[in-house]
This record gives sequence, C-alpha cells and structure tokens, in this order.
Amino acid sequence: MNTRILLERRPVGWVDASCFRIEPCPEPACGAEDVVVEAIWLSLDPYLRGRMNEGPSYAPGFAIGAPIVSRVVGRVLASRNARFAEGDFVWGFLDWALRTVVPRGEGLTRIDPALGRPSLAISALGMPGLTAWIGAMEIGRPRPGDTVYVSSAAGAVGQLAGQFARRAGARVVGSAGGPDKVAFVLGRCGFDAAFDYKAQDLDEALREHCPRGIDVYFDNVGGSTLEAALRHANVGARFPLCGMISAYNATSDAGIKGLPLMVSKRIAMTGFIIYDHVHQLPAYQARVAPWLRDGSLHFHEDIVHGLERAPAALIGMMKGEAIGKRLVQVSAV
Amino acid sequence: MNTRILLERRPVGWVDASCFRIEPCPEPACGAEDVVVEAIWLSLDPYLRGRMNEGPSYAPGFAIGAPIVSRVVGRVLASRNARFAEGDFVWGFLDWALRTVVPRGEGLTRIDPALGRPSLAISALGMPGLTAWIGAMEIGRPRPGDTVYVSSAAGAVGQLAGQFARRAGARVVGSAGGPDKVAFVLGRCGFDAAFDYKAQDLDEALREHCPRGIDVYFDNVGGSTLEAALRHANVGARFPLCGMISAYNATSDAGIKGLPLMVSKRIAMTGFIIYDHVHQLPAYQARVAPWLRDGSLHFHEDIVHGLERAPAALIGMMKGEAIGKRLVQVSAV
Repeated sequence: MNTRILLERRPVGWVDASCFRIEPCPEPACGAEDVVVEAIWLSLDPYLRGRMNEGPSYAPGFAIGAPIVSRVVGRVLASRNARFAEGDFVWGFLDWALRTVVPRGEGLTRIDPALGRPSLAISALGMPGLTAWIGAMEIGRPRPGDTVYVSSAAGAVGQLAGQFARRAGARVVGSAGGPDKVAFVLGRCGFDAAFDYKAQDLDEALREHCPRGIDVYFDNVGGSTLEAALRHANVGARFPLCGMISAYNATSDAGIKGLPLMVSKRIAMTGFIIYDHVHQLPAYQARVAPWLRDGSLHFHEDIVHGLERAPAALIGMMKGEAIGKRLVQVSAV
Repeated sequence: MNTRILLERRPVGWVDASCFRIEPCPEPACGAEDVVVEAIWLSLDPYLRGRMNEGPSYAPGFAIGAPIVSRVVGRVLASRNARFAEGDFVWGFLDWALRTVVPRGEGLTRIDPALGRPSLAISALGMPGLTAWIGAMEIGRPRPGDTVYVSSAAGAVGQLAGQFARRAGARVVGSAGGPDKVAFVLGRCGFDAAFDYKAQDLDEALREHCPRGIDVYFDNVGGSTLEAALRHANVGARFPLCGMISAYNATSDAGIKGLPLMVSKRIAMTGFIIYDHVHQLPAYQARVAPWLRDGSLHFHEDIVHGLERAPAALIGMMKGEAIGKRLVQVSAV
C-alpha cells in the first residue's frame, strides 16, 4: 500500500510529531510522458524547517495538508518518458511517499552510475557537498597555514567543509555537540582539532584550539558561536554564512553582538544559498568523486530506516542527534 | 604662545570637555633633519573616539597626559630637512598644537599644489575621500540602476560615497539627522532622495525611498539602521561597513538582529579600514581631483575656528552637529 507524509500544522518554535500526518494514499498512475518513481532515500536538511513556516524562506512554504517535499533518490518503476528507463536511479524534489508519479519527468535527474552509490547524488556529490565546497573554498578561500573553524563540524556540510579546507593546506578546527561527534570529526574526518561546545566554554575552546586566531569561520549555526568567532577572528577573516540553524527554531532573534569587530578586523561575512551555484555541480562532481572513490575524502551518511520514521528523524536532526548526512531509507536499493 | 591639547581622562560613554586639557607649551626647537610645522587644519574623525579608549582600536590608544593626535595640514615654518622647504604645505599625524616639531620629518607628506586647496589632502582627496571610494565602489560595486543607500549621508565620507555611486549610474538615497542635512544631501550633493532619520520611521522611509529595495548599503552607523537595511536589502546586496558610529560611544552592545537575512538574501557585509588601502591614494587623487576642479563633484568642509574649540568641535561632531567634513582651523592659510 502506498503511503505519504503531509504537513498537518505549522510548527511554532521546535517542530514536533503533531506537525505531520502519515496516511495511505493511492498508487500513482503513469500518464503519457510521466515517470513513476519508487523512493529509496529521502534527504533531511535544515532548510526544510523554513519551508514549514507560513512565508517564503529559501523556497516557498509547504501548504498545510500537502505532502512534505525534499530531495529524494529513487528508482524508476515505470516510465512513459524517453529520457528515463525502468530501473534508472534518479533524483528530484519529490513528495515524501513510497511511490510518486513525476508528470512528464519534470525536475527529475538521472544519476550517472559512475558517481558511485546513488545516495551520493543528494549527499556528498549533491547539494550538501557543493554547499561545503562553495562556502569553504570559494567564499572562505583558505590559504596554506590558515586556521579554519567549522561549526556543526559533524554535520552533512561541516564534515566536508573541514576536509576541503584541510586539502587546501589549512589547519582545521571543528566544534560539535557531544563526544561521539567530536570523535567522528577527529577520527574519520581527520580535522586537526575538535571540541564539544556543550562541554567547554567557547572562548576557552577557541583560545586553546585556534591559538593563532581564526582566518575562516564556516558558520552553520549563528548565535553565540558566531559571536565567539568574531572575537577570535584575525584581521581579514572570511565568514561564509551557510545557515544559522540556531535561529531556525527560535521564536525571537537575540541579535548578534560584536559586529563592530567586523570593521576593526576587516571581516567579510557572506551569506550564500546553494541554488545560486547549481551550474557548478558537474565540475564539483568531477573534482570530488575521485576523492570519494580513492578514500581520501570521508563522508558519513546517517541512515534511518522506514518512511514512518521520517518526521522523528527530521526532528532529531534539528536537535542535533545525527552524525553526518541524515537520510531516511524507505525501500531497499 | 604655543598651545596644545592633551587627553586628560578617558571617556566612559560620551566624550565631554573634561576629557581634554588645553595648556600652554614650549615653542618647538628644530634639531638636525627636523621640520617645524605650523598647524592650519586639524581633521576631526569618528575613529578618534576609539583612540581615547584604553585598548587598541584601529590605532593605538592615546596615553593620558599626552597630546591628542590626528591628521593635520600645516605649513613648514622651519626645516633642516632636505625634503621640506619653508612655506611648503604638508600633512601628517601631528599633535593638536599650534606649532610642532616633526623629528626628521618622519610621516610628513608634502602636499602637491596641483591638488587644489591644501585642506583637501585630509578631506576629499585624503583618507575620508579614499574611504568613500573603496567602500562605495570597490566593496559596493554599484551597477547602473542599483539602489545605493548611504547613512550619515551628510558626513565627510557619506557625501562622497553617494556621489561616487551616482556617477556609476546608481540611484542614491541618503539618510541624515535633521532637515538642514537632508537639504544639503539633496541640494549640494545631488542624491536622488534623502530623509531625516530623526523625523521618519526607518522602515517607512526605506519603503518610500527605496521602492525597489537596497542593492548597496554603505554603513556608517550600525545599530538599528543596519538592521533596517537588512530588512530592505535585495538578494545579492553588498554592505560595506565603514564604521559603526552608533557603537563608538555605547557602553553596551545591543547586538544586530536579522543576521539570518544575510543567508536568505545572500548578503555580503565587508568591514574595511582605509589604512589597508593607502597605496591606492595616488590613483584615487588622480581620478577625483579633476572632478573637484570641474565642479562635478561637491565636497563640503565644516570649519570651526580656533584650537581651543577643537574639543567641543569633536564632541559636537560625534553628536551629529557637523555637515560635511569637520576641520578645525587653528591658523590663517
């Protein structure tokens, strides 16, 4: 039986399970030019929190009573479209449902089998990966010997941002919540240093782990972490702003203190959204896929099994329980 | 009789007259290689407030009991240095005193008579002018049709920042405190629109005067003006941060709200300090001096007469009483 997940009500502050409804739904019918896709992996990303609000965020808000949509990797079950064949792996912005019809195959992309496992198309070789690259390399521009500090270092983007900067010769420091994440960042991702922001005072930790100051701060969180990075930044520091997850669930905005330091230290803060850079994806994939194949770049997917567990997996991710890129696997590969 | 002005005590919050001491002092003696300069104009700049604090700001703090120092244009009274002749106009970071000796002439620059009136070396053709150029043109990068919003538009830097952006084809909007300044910005400086931030709600004013949003915000003030500019910014806006005068006299930092808008709108905020760009001064002067000569660029100097009035003139400037670039004229040209 087909199943889908709808937005039941808009969250105020933190998302909880009552915001979602799971219900049976009809099997998709494949009209002329259409493609029916069986979902395999749903991508859970922090930006989805913004789409659950009323107004537009990065993307239009979800309608109440309509399916949640995110990047999904699936397999073509049936196709009446010349661009797709049964059995192809594809990705697109699809409903959270076991099976969906994609009218005329619009927005669907066939995944090149040469990339490796198909989930990479929505993880290390998709938007999270490109986000890490643009932020760390194009906006951060690390030079050999620079100190690069990455918050949410054990997250989908952070794990790569740090590794990219390290390949460029920087000394990379990450922060994450809890000892397991810190061990992951140090061990699997090979950062030069990492600390648990829940266990150590931020100023103390940055003094200890960034003794020569911060040249690039890859901001995934905003709030007091951004303020601390301003205090420890060097002259000429670059701050790519990737998304201030600390603000996503906040109902009020406390403000960021210390902005006059941007003048005295000539700091450049640059917000970016990956939609502006999608044309760079093929070049990014060509560069990074070999590093994943040869094992010199590590990427961890945190897989939760079962469509019905997607709401809890999203809520948990927003609260920081995932290590690496969280995907929900809804059917076997 | 020679006279000088010392820092008597450090201000807490707003500067007041008790921070300064005016006292007679010895006439300078001209040793071998030295230059004695008669001050004509003292430059009053907001960054001086930072130098009155204990710690380093842009530049080292003034010592208590030592003379206040700022950019000064003067005339060589006596020279035992081959690089300077009696009667030369020069500028340098000099004591606030009627006459000063500059040991070995170090840090002193002869002013090219071709630039026009000598005061321009510390105003439109000096650091305030270069500051406006770097911020408005190199960081702001206005395109024809862009909306450029300049706060402190009637200030030393703001008046030029807007005119430079307008020459580049932008629509230029300024804010200033009070109807006289607004009239100056509209009339003499030729901005497309201007408003009195003391008389109109900021959001209302920006909706009215920037109906197509803000592409470049030249920030001279920080605080609630910066917050409003974030709300009215367009996607891809550039915010050169020149100095947050609202914070200079503040004893606490309220924080800037709305920074998550930097991500959703892909805003780049870039702090800068003109010391990093002094090598660009000759090229800047060569470009801009003809515009001042042919009258196509307007620059207003707000001249206060008398060394003894320098403290009050600085305090008044910090409180916003000056129109244009404030100089204290301490002797006749």
